[in-house]
Amino acid sequence: MVSAKMVTKTVDLRSDTVTKPTESMRAAMANAEVDDDVLTYDPTAFRLESEMAKVTGKEAALYVPSGTMGNLISVLVHCEIRGSEVILGDNSHIHIYENGGISTIGGVHPRTVKNNKDGTMDIDLIEAAIRNPKGELVYPTTRLICLENTQANCGGKCLSVEYTDRVGELAKKHGLKLHIDGARIFNAAVALGVPVHRLVQAADSVSVCLSKGLGAPVGSVIVGSKSFIDKARRLRKTLGGGMRQIGILCAAALVALQENVGKLESDHKKAKILAEGLNQIKGLRVDVDSVETNILYFEIEEGAKIKGDNLCKNLEERGVLVMPESLSRIRIVLHHQISASDVQYTLSCFQQALSGAHEENGN
Amino acid sequence: MVSAKMVTKTVDLRSDTVTKPTESMRAAMANAEVDDDVLTYDPTAFRLESEMAKVTGKEAALYVPSGTMGNLISVLVHCEIRGSEVILGDNSHIHIYENGGISTIGGVHPRTVKNNKDGTMDIDLIEAAIRNPKGELVYPTTRLICLENTQANCGGKCLSVEYTDRVGELAKKHGLKLHIDGARIFNAAVALGVPVHRLVQAADSVSVCLSKGLGAPVGSVIVGSKSFIDKARRLRKTLGGGMRQIGILCAAALVALQENVGKLESDHKKAKILAEGLNQIKGLRVDVDSVETNILYFEIEEGAKIKGDNLCKNLEERGVLVMPESLSRIRIVLHHQISASDVQYTLSCFQQALSGAHEENGN
Amino acid sequence: MVSAKMVTKTVDLRSDTVTKPTESMRAAMANAEVDDDVLTYDPTAFRLESEMAKVTGKEAALYVPSGTMGNLISVLVHCEIRGSEVILGDNSHIHIYENGGISTIGGVHPRTVKNNKDGTMDIDLIEAAIRNPKGELVYPTTRLICLENTQANCGGKCLSVEYTDRVGELAKKHGLKLHIDGARIFNAAVALGVPVHRLVQAADSVSVCLSKGLGAPVGSVIVGSKSFIDKARRLRKTLGGGMRQIGILCAAALVALQENVGKLESDHKKAKILAEGLNQIKGLRVDVDSVETNILYFEIEEGAKIKGDNLCKNLEERGVLVMPESLSRIRIVLHHQISASDVQYTLSCFQQALSGAHEENGN
Amino acid sequence: MVSAKMVTKTVDLRSDTVTKPTESMRAAMANAEVDDDVLTYDPTAFRLESEMAKVTGKEAALYVPSGTMGNLISVLVHCEIRGSEVILGDNSHIHIYENGGISTIGGVHPRTVKNNKDGTMDIDLIEAAIRNPKGELVYPTTRLICLENTQANCGGKCLSVEYTDRVGELAKKHGLKLHIDGARIFNAAVALGVPVHRLVQAADSVSVCLSKGLGAPVGSVIVGSKSFIDKARRLRKTLGGGMRQIGILCAAALVALQENVGKLESDHKKAKILAEGLNQIKGLRVDVDSVETNILYFEIEEGAKIKGDNLCKNLEERGVLVMPESLSRIRIVLHHQISASDVQYTLSCFQQALSGAHEENGN
Repeated sequence: MVSAKMVTKTVDLRSDTVTKPTESMRAAMANAEVDDDVLTYDPTAFRLESEMAKVTGKEAALYVPSGTMGNLISVLVHCEIRGSEVILGDNSHIHIYENGGISTIGGVHPRTVKNNKDGTMDIDLIEAAIRNPKGELVYPTTRLICLENTQANCGGKCLSVEYTDRVGELAKKHGLKLHIDGARIFNAAVALGVPVHRLVQAADSVSVCLSKGLGAPVGSVIVGSKSFIDKARRLRKTLGGGMRQIGILCAAALVALQENVGKLESDHKKAKILAEGLNQIKGLRVDVDSVETNILYFEIEEGAKIKGDNLCKNLEERGVLVMPESLSRIRIVLHHQISASDVQYTLSCFQQALSGAHEENGN
Repeated sequence: MVSAKMVTKTVDLRSDTVTKPTESMRAAMANAEVDDDVLTYDPTAFRLESEMAKVTGKEAALYVPSGTMGNLISVLVHCEIRGSEVILGDNSHIHIYENGGISTIGGVHPRTVKNNKDGTMDIDLIEAAIRNPKGELVYPTTRLICLENTQANCGGKCLSVEYTDRVGELAKKHGLKLHIDGARIFNAAVALGVPVHRLVQAADSVSVCLSKGLGAPVGSVIVGSKSFIDKARRLRKTLGGGMRQIGILCAAALVALQENVGKLESDHKKAKILAEGLNQIKGLRVDVDSVETNILYFEIEEGAKIKGDNLCKNLEERGVLVMPESLSRIRIVLHHQISASDVQYTLSCFQQALSGAHEENGN
Repeated sequence: MVSAKMVTKTVDLRSDTVTKPTESMRAAMANAEVDDDVLTYDPTAFRLESEMAKVTGKEAALYVPSGTMGNLISVLVHCEIRGSEVILGDNSHIHIYENGGISTIGGVHPRTVKNNKDGTMDIDLIEAAIRNPKGELVYPTTRLICLENTQANCGGKCLSVEYTDRVGELAKKHGLKLHIDGARIFNAAVALGVPVHRLVQAADSVSVCLSKGLGAPVGSVIVGSKSFIDKARRLRKTLGGGMRQIGILCAAALVALQENVGKLESDHKKAKILAEGLNQIKGLRVDVDSVETNILYFEIEEGAKIKGDNLCKNLEERGVLVMPESLSRIRIVLHHQISASDVQYTLSCFQQALSGAHEENGN
Repeated sequence: MVSAKMVTKTVDLRSDTVTKPTESMRAAMANAEVDDDVLTYDPTAFRLESEMAKVTGKEAALYVPSGTMGNLISVLVHCEIRGSEVILGDNSHIHIYENGGISTIGGVHPRTVKNNKDGTMDIDLIEAAIRNPKGELVYPTTRLICLENTQANCGGKCLSVEYTDRVGELAKKHGLKLHIDGARIFNAAVALGVPVHRLVQAADSVSVCLSKGLGAPVGSVIVGSKSFIDKARRLRKTLGGGMRQIGILCAAALVALQENVGKLESDHKKAKILAEGLNQIKGLRVDVDSVETNILYFEIEEGAKIKGDNLCKNLEERGVLVMPESLSRIRIVLHHQISASDVQYTLSCFQQALSGAHEENGN
């Protein structure tokens, strides 16, 4: 039995946002060339933004403090006219986990379309939701479609190039913009085996998180046309996201781009191994085939010897942290600081927890 | 064949908002006692508001220029704190037909729950949508549930006392408010055979339209607690809904309350007759059982001899106006200025249009 | 001494919004041709809007429930892009008396310029307040200048054609729009002896009140280009200002236009007479020369035998209503339902109140 | 004459935001203990926030990416109810330099009071601007007063303890909150010789900038009651200011607090020396007595041999950067990376520029 004292390590599987900066990132931060990015430009921020524009195939880029701000700015720039409506997935991060900021701060009206299990929305449902091409009296005006790739709440599913292109064509046909919440777009690109710039080719803007799978300590980047980024820069200032010597943070992000993209494939493999292992444990159920990237959800079956809250506590005592979504559904996210042996250790903790051994722990 | 010249009357079935003021309303307006309702109070407005408070069993009432403003003010008063979320039907009037004003003007985040065919939302889905009892970081805070009775987009379906009470209990349990968009609450009360005040007993606020089935020329009334109405009055002024000598309009509304509530049952019967008649016409399909009040939708079958747009034009030439929702689905609304013979005339126009006679009209 | 019982008439000088509809207005309302102004157009509203467009020399017009909504819609249409700033007088009605709605509802940032005693703002101060021609990072973007004519808070002062034209040129030079809050623009036109259309020639939009000096029971009209009015119509719907059979109210407004514009000159004369009379009463002070239209302010001198609040009560007991702004400054507004004898009666009430007779009333 | 090639150093006097992280800060950043500050708390952020709460004498603190966000969040928390008005200086940073975000993003209505030359607003003018104690119909409700200490636009003037306390008493008397934009509150405290906590004792919230005089690379901290900070944390997330491993940045800020507060007095002395030196140069005018902290403005006299834009270019060629406010008024800000010899070098550059030597440079 594992005692609290014996736990010497933490295997933090709650999110890929929990990674710590690596030694090379720390060195880069300590030596970063910096300047005031509000008054003029920080040179390291400029390098990062140039690199991100190139990787995503867009004209320009802007560093922002978080993915939430990246999405908020993007939606608000595309919907800069009062009375705008955005079409987005009913299970999307923007709709569910960003405080409703596009409405409560931005006054944009969301119109949701059902997210399928694979993260897509049916193209014809998106089209049916588009409103007000003729400026009708009682409807807000659709100005934007948002996709999310990978779709976190759908288990890290990838949207394909083909699907994204089709939504892009639909947007163009109706004079709309397309934004991709690409918090984990690198995971999608790696899983699909396509370059990032091809995957987001149809998008007018993309937000890309640096502090998730890529492992940088802080920040996201939004990319788009030069005029989009010009407007985004002012809005970043309005929201209070204009920061001074951010070269510190951007230096770490440049290292992340260089060193960590190559580790994503391994994260996906570890997720698969974990999924397969968990699925073999009596009382747990994972749709192994659906695990495409670094995120997996598992269900605790009704007859399991332990319930979700106790399972989480039990695992925590063993140094394994997971993210409960409900009493019976739990999320696990892999990242580059989870080793193969961490995966095996995690599986053994689950096995013990589900075998009933935990009952000795009282609680 | 009916020629344009021969059409001496218009049977306007697009909405119950198209009624003209009756002679008694016109007389009442001409003789109304009035005063400046912004500086102090208009005496006739005061009478109307008192009467509406009584009929709905609430403490206080406020006259507003439209149902849209009534709903907007109600949502904004209940969601006066930035970061609020409202749960409402995905097919509700507020979500679909009010320009997204609660977001675009009020900054309130909408969270939709699927409207069933009978206008209800499943209670457990409502409960699952409630967020942030503990002030969690990434969610807006649910502060309000909205119902609509009758549910226009669901074919004028009534929500029962039992259902409304259950939603009211749910709201109370979670510390939320309940608003009812009661644009046609009198239709619901008549159809269900219950007094209006019982039907809205569980609600913290209700907006009631005077210019739909009741036939007054302009306006709605919102009702609620005294403190709700105090806040609503200021917000009405902010939105520009504070008007001067509105006793003119309120006088007509008082006549409407006295003379027209009794006519609603007949409107419902005429809707049923029309539904049955249309359902017998080859090429049309109506779910007759679902017609509970004064609204009906019919479908044009694929093999019908005429398509939706041509059907509408054809009927218009005969003096019959209907409201197309799509090429194959059309709305009809009955009101007190549609007589039994208008219903028969309408049916005969449909019969002719669907028999193929229209094809002679060219176009 | 006047006892409450003896008071048989009320001389209401609080505002020109307190007028009651005349017999001819009531007749017009009783006989108005009407239709649903939301679904299509109300024919009488259409006539009123056409007439107002003509009188003001603009392409199109829109009836709205109030002057507050007229101003709110106008500012919001011109400032439809998030991040807009409006330049307006620090003593303007929009800034002081409209609940801050342009910000609290519309998210527009106000930048005030000092109103001179004559209602103008210095042209160079306006120009200095204009911001962000080049999209600088930290400033909102000025998109609109607002004038008010007559300037209520400055004692009903008129802005001249010359001044208005100069502000219009300034706006054009900087690519800005010019809105005139013309609640009392007819008073200004009459006092200046110029046609309304000339006075507002430089403006992109004007809101004109029908229920102030013109004496209609309810409503204002905004005028501007066709595209401005198209956007205004949708925003009116969003705010809940779209009403049904408004021909009732518009019929009264058409009578007001025909019958009451001619009475404004007399209102101005009566204001002058009242100003001169009050100025001769010991303890009161009026800047008689500054009274240009139907509004006057008087000051109660320090040594006066009665203070502001007691004076108002004392006058109210005599049936004379005025509007205190502070303990020592009180507003009076003339309108067509104040007769020459009302003016004399009012002066006599003031004389009695200021002579100390009121002290017998105790309180 | 200085040639471009000879310029080996830049003396950047545009703002105190331009400082580069020191070696000790870089070391601290490289070794910072960090965690995900969104999912749980970053330990170094926690240390910084605890320290800042202690220094300011408030219950709790929150790290934010910028002073603009600190002010925005503070205003929005205090004005969380729709329809709020804030009283602030017409020359304050929030009103002039923050994109109007409190209105354009937050829907808060600003009501400005004239800033005196010393940065104060007259107490009686503040009191006169307070509105709506009784919920009157046409006014927004004042909920907050904002001060700024030091007042940047007024030349870095300090507000005294006595003045701040008096405004605090006024706020309390009227049930309002008091926020201090304390971007440079440490400068004020040092100049006045009082502890920071005493200077902000009357405030309900304070935003303090870490990246101005204190020299940290990024960020501000807001402080207030625990419930204020709880709301601020959610709003920070909404705006997108929730960041992950911010311990990196907070570690530098902790060093700044320890090492740089003591340097502020020297900054103030250097500002004084520079002011005196500039004032002795023919063609320049500085109000030397008014220089209290690290900011000074100088005027270029009409007869000067060089105009503002040429002066700035001329200085830039010599490696000296300043911030023009207009053609005749220029801002200089001292900070810890400007040495005594930089000051002397700067003065000599000015002397040369004003002596006419620049004319040789052409342009």
